[in-house]
Amino acid sequence: MALQGKKLINNPDDVVTEFIEGLVETYPGLQYLDGFPEIKVVLRADAVGGAYDKVAVISGGGSGHEPAHAGFVGPGMLTAAVSGDVFASPPVDSILAAIRAVTGTMGCLLIIKNYTGDRLNFGLAAEQAKSEGYKIEMVIVGDDCALPPPRGIAGRRGLAGTILVHKVAGAAADAGLSLADVAAEAKHASEAVGTMGVALSVCTLPGQVTSDRLGPEQIELGLGIHGEPGAAVVELQTVDVVVEHVLKQILSQETQYLPITRGSNAVLLINGLGATPVMELMIAARKAVPELQLEYGIAVDRVYTGTFMTSLDMAGLSITIMRSDENILQRLDAPTKAPAWPVGSEGNRPPAKFPVPVPPSPSMKDDEILSERQELSKQGCMLEAAIEAAAKELIDLKDNLNDWDSKVGDGDCGTTMYRGATAILEDMKTRYHLNDAAGTVNEIGSTIRKVMGGTSGILYDILCKAAYASLKQNKNITAYEWADALEASIAAVSKYGGARAGYRTMLDALIPASTVLKQSLKAGDDPVTAFIASSEAALAGAESTKQMQAKAGRSSYISPDHLVSIPDPGAMAAAAWYRAAALSVKNKLHASES
Amino acid sequence: MALQGKKLINNPDDVVTEFIEGLVETYPGLQYLDGFPEIKVVLRADAVGGAYDKVAVISGGGSGHEPAHAGFVGPGMLTAAVSGDVFASPPVDSILAAIRAVTGTMGCLLIIKNYTGDRLNFGLAAEQAKSEGYKIEMVIVGDDCALPPPRGIAGRRGLAGTILVHKVAGAAADAGLSLADVAAEAKHASEAVGTMGVALSVCTLPGQVTSDRLGPEQIELGLGIHGEPGAAVVELQTVDVVVEHVLKQILSQETQYLPITRGSNAVLLINGLGATPVMELMIAARKAVPELQLEYGIAVDRVYTGTFMTSLDMAGLSITIMRSDENILQRLDAPTKAPAWPVGSEGNRPPAKFPVPVPPSPSMKDDEILSERQELSKQGCMLEAAIEAAAKELIDLKDNLNDWDSKVGDGDCGTTMYRGATAILEDMKTRYHLNDAAGTVNEIGSTIRKVMGGTSGILYDILCKAAYASLKQNKNITAYEWADALEASIAAVSKYGGARAGYRTMLDALIPASTVLKQSLKAGDDPVTAFIASSEAALAGAESTKQMQAKAGRSSYISPDHLVSIPDPGAMAAAAWYRAAALSVKNKLHASES
Repeated sequence: MALQGKKLINNPDDVVTEFIEGLVETYPGLQYLDGFPEIKVVLRADAVGGAYDKVAVISGGGSGHEPAHAGFVGPGMLTAAVSGDVFASPPVDSILAAIRAVTGTMGCLLIIKNYTGDRLNFGLAAEQAKSEGYKIEMVIVGDDCALPPPRGIAGRRGLAGTILVHKVAGAAADAGLSLADVAAEAKHASEAVGTMGVALSVCTLPGQVTSDRLGPEQIELGLGIHGEPGAAVVELQTVDVVVEHVLKQILSQETQYLPITRGSNAVLLINGLGATPVMELMIAARKAVPELQLEYGIAVDRVYTGTFMTSLDMAGLSITIMRSDENILQRLDAPTKAPAWPVGSEGNRPPAKFPVPVPPSPSMKDDEILSERQELSKQGCMLEAAIEAAAKELIDLKDNLNDWDSKVGDGDCGTTMYRGATAILEDMKTRYHLNDAAGTVNEIGSTIRKVMGGTSGILYDILCKAAYASLKQNKNITAYEWADALEASIAAVSKYGGARAGYRTMLDALIPASTVLKQSLKAGDDPVTAFIASSEAALAGAESTKQMQAKAGRSSYISPDHLVSIPDPGAMAAAAWYRAAALSVKNKLHASES
Repeated sequence: MALQGKKLINNPDDVVTEFIEGLVETYPGLQYLDGFPEIKVVLRADAVGGAYDKVAVISGGGSGHEPAHAGFVGPGMLTAAVSGDVFASPPVDSILAAIRAVTGTMGCLLIIKNYTGDRLNFGLAAEQAKSEGYKIEMVIVGDDCALPPPRGIAGRRGLAGTILVHKVAGAAADAGLSLADVAAEAKHASEAVGTMGVALSVCTLPGQVTSDRLGPEQIELGLGIHGEPGAAVVELQTVDVVVEHVLKQILSQETQYLPITRGSNAVLLINGLGATPVMELMIAARKAVPELQLEYGIAVDRVYTGTFMTSLDMAGLSITIMRSDENILQRLDAPTKAPAWPVGSEGNRPPAKFPVPVPPSPSMKDDEILSERQELSKQGCMLEAAIEAAAKELIDLKDNLNDWDSKVGDGDCGTTMYRGATAILEDMKTRYHLNDAAGTVNEIGSTIRKVMGGTSGILYDILCKAAYASLKQNKNITAYEWADALEASIAAVSKYGGARAGYRTMLDALIPASTVLKQSLKAGDDPVTAFIASSEAALAGAESTKQMQAKAGRSSYISPDHLVSIPDPGAMAAAAWYRAAALSVKNKLHASES
């Protein structure tokens, strides 16, 4: 299957210029030099005009490594970045244009990755610029640790470690140092940095076919960032094993690439190669930090995790380690407005991070068991009777509810309600402070949450919590306070659940109940009359769902034809327990009056 | 092919907790609550302890959307983020733990994406927290514009627009506003934002097989961020067409999702879905900005391009538009230390960005043709003779050089040198100011660069540029200045090309030549004697390459056995032109003396 790689691009020949146009649209502080398509230079909008009074720091190279290098242009980092075509060194004229555009009397440092094309093109531009009177220095970064020391001049490739060198040099230039001093700091940094990567996929050049070089279970170790084959192909392993291996290679005592030993300090950079999710990069960071600290005795001063130097759409990551000292940390921590430099990694890390303890719940009554049988007030007796009646009604209605639900939902409404009702009857004996109506309602919610899963469990708990919050504002709880609590409950269920009247939910029982209760009480009816009328409205409301289209829950996925003449089981359940509670209050009051 | 998705992870069940551990390793300012694996809460390290004196802003939801939401925790943005498992709403106890950990007397705003699970779990936690005495408000973001207005409560999904709401609310809270005011600003922002996405690939859940739902030439429009199918599958198109379509849908007059009309101001967010290279996001931004401004008459105040709200490893992007006003811009521009909020997008954008003109070259002599035949000085005559002799020698040597090169390289050394020599003879007549030795050397470099491609062309140009920079420091140019220039040339070629003595390159001719020239002049030899001796050293040096292993160029890929007895053609060419020039100087001087 030789398939052209899927990309969100236009003409493959235009990807670099269009990238640059998008970049300067995004960042007001960036500008670009005219001269597309040959000259592809991004520069600080405030450094244009040749009057730049600090050492200019320029980098660049082939494109396909975004955000490098243009994304690192900004105060405190690069002054300009020169891009070639994808994976191709920029031509000398582009580099010269960049040098001429931003170099002032303090001179210019070129920082490049160690590739022959970049060395020669930037080198020629440097010599040309010198012959024009510019002060130019050049630092070449070769941080690759994947291959054994080379025989020849191809040398170690420049990889993501270059970004750290950019930052050190950019901060040194921003501090006003001379060209010689900025170059010396960049060189020092370049000699203290090492990188190695691992790839899960091969990158695809715009407009070209996707390579099937890597098998579905294979990864490449020691990759380059231009699609070239890695140093070794191995079976896919856990990221912990991969990180261990990569660190071992970077810190190899055999190659001695890095001047880092036990007791050294270092910074760590975990770099995504283009198509690697942040989640995976962070998981690698999680392994690398303790591995460095505990296995190698290296204090990790800073961690930079993100996407810095990519290989187009390659999946995978590279790890970079740079020996750190006080000066390097100061440069790395110095503020910059370069868009792709990471935020929030600056400042000293605690030696180890201990998680913050979870704050305790202020009310831990859930697990408290009443020590002795309570003496119930008149109100407590009524509440007990109402709860018992409501719960028993739900238990009796189990099969009916399941039957209706099997026709319009998933058939478990009765069983779920039964589970809640049974648990409430159980907990009422030992846990509920029935003389405290508000507290009891709250506890009912907790019982429900414990045993009733799914949406209905949460909605009933929300209903109870909202009623509790409403009730507990009052010392005396009468029918009026219950009416307010019902209203608050409905508002909360509607707010979080999203349903309103007519959506074919339990609210189609509770909303008419609430309306009638308030009206009746306002009209001066006695509480029992009001509750009974209200419960009749609940029943009528639940029955009316037979004619409703579903707008919530599983029923909303079912054809309206199937719903006709079947009531919403949630509404029927709500009407049933409400009606049972109302009748029990009536009976209780009549019993006590007679 | 049902293949398990390749990921750099350990146990698929641990990805979220390990992500959080890596996150807090990376950012010193972030902390996490104990209580893994159930409780997954990231919070500001400085907001722990309940004494937080501003409105706390908490968000969260299922994981798999990294950097959302934990990456947006920081001063000026979120106070805490609560994560569930991948694509699963966090449990109520986690949300409650977060609220209790960071909420002070000013209260807490919960901002969530519109999904039933999040609404219910955060809703219940909110009610529970209220019942514990906390002041809580909640804002639900449903910014999806892909689907027609819904009949029911499932409603519009929450997508990347949520990030902008986080920022507005976080900045308002940071400014010290009351809970009611912070919630009002968040609500206002949530009602002004719309999003739609396009996917090139389906995301793969950790440990699960990769879906082949999308064909190799297909993309999905109007995707969700949980792997659910998009609104439509279409053929792969250019990104310009995709962006046009998405903007049309977001700004549809039919759905009227956004309160944006011609003349409105807006901010634009281009969001990568997890595996989308920065290059492609920027190319989309490049299209979206002028499209909004020119086609829709909407002034684009800010552009945010990056990776904010992902769907694991999905390739693709979403576009978000939010109507902006002065207050919203102030909130978006307010500083924050949240790691994933973009840097460099703040501040007013210029209405249009015109590229900076390319600075002109200070020396534009390349294209200048000498108006009349110049009167040559004695020095000029000697230089003319030397150049002519050197060029003719290379022309004569063409076949030999090609022959050697065919055995140790790509066989074109003679042809390349021939091309350069011929062009030099041509340009010498009309372009070179032969009385100006430094200038002539510089012009030779330009001639070479014009006609000789590849590495050798650049190296010879570097050689000429370095010689020019050395020569032009002197008014009188004698043998001593030529010796210095040769030394400087060798240094530049070695520095940028990377070769040293013994690498089997042209330097193996030039380095002995330079050494002998300096020695001989120092010993008091007359210049002609010195040049002749030097040229003999060049020849001997070139011959000695027969015994060398290649360490540079194409020959370094060839087995040493094949190289024995074949000289390096580059070294032979250098010795030949140098020898010819030296002999011509000798002849010229003898002729003028006789």
